[in-house]
Formats: sequence, structure tokens, C-alpha cells
Amino acid sequence: MSRWEPNTRERLVRAALDLFSEQGYDATTVSQIAERAGGLTKMTFFRYFSDKREVLFAGQDVHLRLLCDAIATAPDTATPLQTVTAGLDAITGTFTDERRDIAARLPAVIAESSELRERGAFKRAGLADAMRQALTTRGVPELTADLAAELGTRALYRAVQRWVDPANQQTLTDLARQALDELRTAAAALD
Amino acid sequence: MSRWEPNTRERLVRAALDLFSEQGYDATTVSQIAERAGGLTKMTFFRYFSDKREVLFAGQDVHLRLLCDAIATAPDTATPLQTVTAGLDAITGTFTDERRDIAARLPAVIAESSELRERGAFKRAGLADAMRQALTTRGVPELTADLAAELGTRALYRAVQRWVDPANQQTLTDLARQALDELRTAAAALD
Repeated sequence: MSRWEPNTRERLVRAALDLFSEQGYDATTVSQIAERAGGLTKMTFFRYFSDKREVLFAGQDVHLRLLCDAIATAPDTATPLQTVTAGLDAITGTFTDERRDIAARLPAVIAESSELRERGAFKRAGLADAMRQALTTRGVPELTADLAAELGTRALYRAVQRWVDPANQQTLTDLARQALDELRTAAAALD
Repeated sequence: MSRWEPNTRERLVRAALDLFSEQGYDATTVSQIAERAGGLTKMTFFRYFSDKREVLFAGQDVHLRLLCDAIATAPDTATPLQTVTAGLDAITGTFTDERRDIAARLPAVIAESSELRERGAFKRAGLADAMRQALTTRGVPELTADLAAELGTRALYRAVQRWVDPANQQTLTDLARQALDELRTAAAALD
């Protein structure tokens, strides 16, 4: 199999998921992942991912860019949560059905390794932070931006959780919008 | 200086903070930290901390126990946020003034290292998760517990940020209660 095959990145992700599931994250080397992905080398792996953990989390930079662009260009009249919705729509629109089985397998694999859990928590914080900053850039007050970004991040994670359920028939975009509504209602009722 | 001196743990934390500030986290070894803490050995370090990162974050287990006990024993009539307040009171009561200068130095040092930032994000998530679980154990519905725990965690972090300001005259307990009130008001107003 040529190393220039177009879906190299995805093959590496799938190979990593397989190996982490079979033998654990710690016991898996980057060379093994590359080999399993179709006889690739470690060097090829590092062209796509900065380290072994990143293979399960890469691509966030693209999401953050889409998110921030959508938030920046939302109508001036949009409320903070309407703005967050525009940002989430931009991200969720990129989740194709082919990614669903990868997304479905991630939680179990991540839960097994403290290194992966840490990287996961870091990525989540990065998403919330980018959303918060994009909102404050629009002039949303700091505390409101903080909370709106937190609800937006939670909405996305809750939506993905539902989306990977084989019984689910809705798009990720619809699920994220619903989740944000639920979170907003619950936040308003807190006492 | 004897390795049995009572404040070994604190000396190790201060030595680590000094060295991370002076030469960076990556360039600092556990042996250097132990040596700087008064001629201790690497072995002594590892009696207190599981790894180099942990030196800046240890002690969370004690906080989580206090938090969960306080939440579990709050009056049956307490609302979710009143319960969170009881939990925060239990934690904030343990922050002595001697810890203030350590707490004041942490953010700048943590910001400089991605490994420390990751561990920090992980600890924060652990706190929120413990709070959420303690609330659901009391029968608080999942989504409400989630958000109440998030506000509680944010309140604590915001309060510590204010507490370490040399101009601040309030106790951490008061600051955390105020921060929680502010967050609650902002959450209720989200649109």
C-alpha cells in the first residue's frame, strides 16, 4: 500500500484505535501504529501527528477556526447563545457519517489511559476557551461569555454522545442545538 | 537539613516552583527539586508525589474527600447550589494564608508548560466530576448536577484568583460564595 494513499491520516487513526483497544495505549508504539496502518513508517506518522496521544485528538485547529469565524460573523443582533449556536453549526456540519464509528470508539479507549484522558481534558478546555475568546471579541461581557462558551462546549459533547448511538437518526447539528436548549433551560432553573 | 523535617512536602513544592520559574519545567529534574529542597533525594520526592508534574497539584484527594463529605451531609432541604456552597466551604476552609504565595505563583508557572497545563485541566475536571457525582448521589437530576458542579468549580477558581491578589482582604470562603452568586445570576440571565 502506498504511503501516499489519500486517506493516510484516517488509516493511522483507525490503526491507533485498534492497537490501543487490543494491547493498551502504553504498550503501543508509534511504529506499530504506522505499520498497522499499511506498512507506513514512524516518520509518516509524525507528518500527521505531533505525538502518540495526538492521533486521537488531531483536527481541533480546523474546528476552532470554523467556530471562531462563525462566531465573529454572526449578526450583530444575535444573543450570546444564538452566536454560540452559529459556532456549533459550523463545527457539527463537518462531522460526516464516516467519522461516526471512530467517534463511537473514542470514549472507551480514552478512558483506559490517564495520558489520553489528560489530553482529552486539555482539548475540551481549548474548545471552551476559543469560544469564550471569540465571544468576548464581539463585546460579550466576560462572565456571560465564559458561561455561554461552557454551555456550548457541553452541548457539543452531549450531542456527539447521542450521535454515536446506532439508534440515533438525527444529525449532529440538530442534536447540538437541542442539547444547548436543554442546558440553557437547566441553567436558568438553577437554585 | 534532615529529610525528616516536618514541612518536607511544602519545601519540595517551593523548590519546584523556584526551579520551574528559573529554568523552565522541562529543564528541571526531580533530583534537582529534591536537592534544592534541602539536600533531599529523588526517592524522598517520590514518597510525596507520583511524578514531576504532580508536585504542583498534589493534595486534591484531601479536597475531594472534604467536598464530597460536605455535600453528602448537607441538609435534605438544601437546593443544589446551597449544597455546592457547603462543599466549597469545606474546601476553602483549608486554604491557609501560608498557601497564598504558593497559589499566587502557580498560574504563571503552569502557563509556561503544556504538560502542566494538561495536568491542571485534568485536576479541574476531576474536581467538577467529584462534585457532580456527589450531587447525583443526593438525587439531584443529572443535568442540574452537571451545571451546579460546573458553577461550583468555576466559583472556586475565580475565588482563588481574587484571593491571591495582595490587595484582597476577604477570606477565600467569602470570595467563593460571592463568585458562586455572580455565576448563578449570569447563568440565569443567559439568552
